[in-house]
Order: sequence, then structure tokens, then C-alpha cells
Amino acid sequence: MTTVAAVDVGGTAIKYGLLRGDVLEPEPEIPTPLRGPDTAEEVVDVVAQALADLRRRSDFEAVGLVVPGYVDAERGVAIRSENLGWRDVPFRDQLAERVGLPVAFGHDVRAGALAEARLGAARGLRDVLVVPIGTGIAAGLVIDGRLHERPGPFGEIGHLDAGHERRCVCGRTGCLEAIASAAAISRAYVEQTGHPATAAEVAARVGEGDPAASLIWQEAVEALAATLAPCITLLAPGAVVIGGGLARAGDLLLRPLRRALERHTPVEVELRPAALGTHAGCTGAGLLALDLLRAAEPA
Amino acid sequence: MTTVAAVDVGGTAIKYGLLRGDVLEPEPEIPTPLRGPDTAEEVVDVVAQALADLRRRSDFEAVGLVVPGYVDAERGVAIRSENLGWRDVPFRDQLAERVGLPVAFGHDVRAGALAEARLGAARGLRDVLVVPIGTGIAAGLVIDGRLHERPGPFGEIGHLDAGHERRCVCGRTGCLEAIASAAAISRAYVEQTGHPATAAEVAARVGEGDPAASLIWQEAVEALAATLAPCITLLAPGAVVIGGGLARAGDLLLRPLRRALERHTPVEVELRPAALGTHAGCTGAGLLALDLLRAAEPA
Repeated sequence: MTTVAAVDVGGTAIKYGLLRGDVLEPEPEIPTPLRGPDTAEEVVDVVAQALADLRRRSDFEAVGLVVPGYVDAERGVAIRSENLGWRDVPFRDQLAERVGLPVAFGHDVRAGALAEARLGAARGLRDVLVVPIGTGIAAGLVIDGRLHERPGPFGEIGHLDAGHERRCVCGRTGCLEAIASAAAISRAYVEQTGHPATAAEVAARVGEGDPAASLIWQEAVEALAATLAPCITLLAPGAVVIGGGLARAGDLLLRPLRRALERHTPVEVELRPAALGTHAGCTGAGLLALDLLRAAEPA
Repeated sequence: MTTVAAVDVGGTAIKYGLLRGDVLEPEPEIPTPLRGPDTAEEVVDVVAQALADLRRRSDFEAVGLVVPGYVDAERGVAIRSENLGWRDVPFRDQLAERVGLPVAFGHDVRAGALAEARLGAARGLRDVLVVPIGTGIAAGLVIDGRLHERPGPFGEIGHLDAGHERRCVCGRTGCLEAIASAAAISRAYVEQTGHPATAAEVAARVGEGDPAASLIWQEAVEALAATLAPCITLLAPGAVVIGGGLARAGDLLLRPLRRALERHTPVEVELRPAALGTHAGCTGAGLLALDLLRAAEPA
């Protein structure tokens, strides 16, 4: 069985571990170096060190590394991350030089989508759209079993115009994630009622008939359906997998979203909650490393 | 050079001809048999007859046949066409039996998209979204040079909810094509002004500062942008090709649509007018036949 190392660099923590066959063995998380002029260099240092320690305990043949922001997976370069403050960092080659192994490089959300399609909620389906909804909203697409991977800023469906007046963290007004992310739902609830509540708590209050919670939830669901409907109609994926914090609301989210989608598009689609949780990105990083090894094998 | 026959069955006319290499040699169109219980049978008769005549003049190795409605290209079956009134017709096998040659079967709009991607406006691009806007609005998608083809009702973006109150021919309210198709634009103009005008004439009046024309045009463009933006954001295609009657408005359509898309999505995309006109579907039918022959060659 092929074993690879997998690394998922997040805004606050670096997740890593070994992927043996289909199973991720996660190591304790490492805090992501604070944002500064040398963040990217420090990330490479910390990751190289962790992998060297790991290698003393267990052998592996390749490394998969995924990061947030805009990435050019083909060239192995992180083009930009607003959260981590880096630009044009050739992570793949830098890490490969440090660990002396082949390194596959990719995008955290898209790697997570690949993992859900191959090993998680959409295992065995040909085409899958994966939509993590947490602080932000993004999307990853697997078509014909292959990850749709292009250079530059794409998949960022959270910044599509959803036709409302609320301000987004990106500085624009009307973005989908300013009305439908877990963060936006929580913020709207405290603004309208004076009572702080997480998105999960707002979801629970919808079930209890809380009118403010219901309106906020309905607006979020409607905005999500309007954004997903064109993609579903164009692609007819086997399933849409909803992940991130908001997916924990389960049927409180999926049931109204299903109904809204029926109104929005003539194409039927199955909605499923994500199965791999916060390890999806790291598992996907491992899958990218496995794919890299397979592509290098003689045919 | 491989020569194939190509047939595009439309609601009023059957287009057909030979595709020699990259060049379509169209024959005079044949009227589509009137809708009735035997329409599908009559279509097969008429097409088989036309191909037999054509074959007396020129040899060809395979046939590509495309039809409107819902099709299952893989099984070679037309699942349903509201306009032509048929259901579950195994066109591919029926025609293959009549002509004694391999027959490739597909969907008219998607075949047209393939033709624009390989030989037309988007020649050489990896991913292309093709959107014909005429009486209705549909979409075809080419990803990595391959046509995205799935069984059943998909690609029908004209029946996505665009959030307005107008009635669509499908019986629902708010469909994209009830506000943004060439037919809808023409209808809205005569309803609001009492003066009949084609969509092209409405476009011209926008340039002359006609306020009714400008408002109708703006609503159409906005609805198109809102529908296309999620698809563009998810896929980052190299180009979106606009075809059909409305594309004849040229920059009167493409310029405001470009501006609206810049507001709607962070992903940049090139908008191009279709290059193959009404022959796109027929040319695409020929390409499907060529692909079928190539797939049958020993590797």
C-alpha cells in the first residue's frame, strides 16, 4: 500500500498526517505562523520540519500540500492569499527541495472536493459539486472523476452577487457569503435581535419558530439556491455535497435548500452533507500526492 | 480526409450535408415533418432518404445526427421533445439500420457548442461555455476539449428562475428566457410601446436612446449576467460564446453583458460572438460522427 504525507495549510492551523491507502492518520495540528512578510518562508520551514520528524517514524513516498487563496496548481505556485498575505510563492518546488520527495500542490477547497468525491459523501459518483459553507463560501468541482483545476481566481462563488445590500469582508456589497455564510447568519441574528447566536443556534431557533431566525435562514437558503442552480443546470452533477460549519445544521439546511432548488432549476440533484469534516482538505492533499506518484509510473 | 454526413433536426427544418475535414457542405434544407404521432418515424424516413440520395453523389463513412429536447447521447435515445412531440425514440439504432453506417447521436445545442469550440469562435480554447439566445436560451459546455454530455434534462439554463413575474412558454413564471430571449425582448417591446419590433430592432433603438428599449435590454442583460456568473465563477472557461439570433446585436449585447459580468463575478472571462451561425449544430453533428470513427480506430 502506498503511503504519502498530506499537509493542509489553513489560516490558523496546519493540519498534516499520513495517508495510507484510503485512510488519513492525522498528527496534532501546528499553529500557522502569524501573518508577516516571511509567512510563506516560515510555513515551508515548519512543514519541512514536521515532515522530517514524521519521516523518522514512518516512511512515505511523496507529499501533498494544499493552501488557501488563489493557486496555480499546474505551476505549483500560490498566487495570492489575502488571509496569509503572500503572493507568487513557488511552494511546490521550495518544499520538494527541502524534503527531497515529489510534492503535489493544490488548493485546499478543491482538494477537499476531490476527497469527498473519491472517499467521502460522493464516493463513486462521476460528477460532484462540493460547497463548503463556513466563514466564507467556496466550491470545488469534480467532473468525470477529475478535479476541475485551473490557474487563478475561480471557484470563489462566495463573492458572486446575490442582490442584497449587505457589506462583504471583501469590500464589495451583495456577495453571497455576506448573506449565506455561517458567519453572516450569526452576524445578522445578533444585529436583528441583540442576542448573539452561532449559525447552528440560529438553525435550531428556526425549528422553534423564531421569526427573526426563520427570515435570516430563508434568505440564506434562497441566495444559495439562486447561486447553485445555474451550476447544477449546466453540469447535472450526481450530487451537491454541502460542507463546512453550516452543514452541521443537517436537514434544517438541506431540506429547505432542496425545496428552493426545485423551484430554481428543472434539473434534479441529490444534496448530501459532507462526510470528511475538517480533514477533507488534508485527505485531498494526500490524494493529490497519490495521483502524482501514479502519473509518474510507467504506463 | 475523412468525410461524414451530418444531420441537424430542428423544429421547422432539417439541415444536413457533408463534413469534409473541417468544412461543412450544406445541402438544401428539408422541412421537418409536421408534429404528429409518427413524427419520429417520418424524420427517420426523410433523413434516411436524403442520406441515400447524398450517398449516390458522394461517399461518406459515418453519420452524425442531432435533435432538440432531452437526449441520452450515450444510449442514442431522444428522451423527449416538447416541440416535436416524441418520447424515448432510439434514433441512433433506427437510422444506423436504415443507412448501414455507424451513427453518432447527440443534442443540437451541445453539438453546436462542440463545433464552436473546435472550429468556430473558441477554436483552440480548453474550456468553453456556448450560449445560444434565440426563441429560447440554452447552454453547451466543452471542458478540456470534451463535450460535457449527460443523460436527461440539463443545459436548459433558459428555465432557471430569474426572479421576475413574467410567464414563460413552459408554464412557469420567472424563467430566464421569459425575460432575456430574443422572443421575450421583442414581446416586451410591443407590450410596452404598442410597436412591433424584433430583438435586433430593439437593440438598435437602445443605441438611439429609446427609453423602453433601454429598460428591456438592461433587464435582459442583467438576468443573463446573473445566470452566467455562477457558471463562469465555478468553471473559469477560456471564453463564453454567445450565439443565436440575439448575438447578431454584436457589441450592443456583448458590451453591457461584459460590464454586468464584471459586477457579478470576480472571474474574468472573454465574451465572443458565435462564428458558425445556424450551421453550428449541423457541423457539430459531423464532429460527433468523426469522433465516433476515431474512437473505433485501433489505438
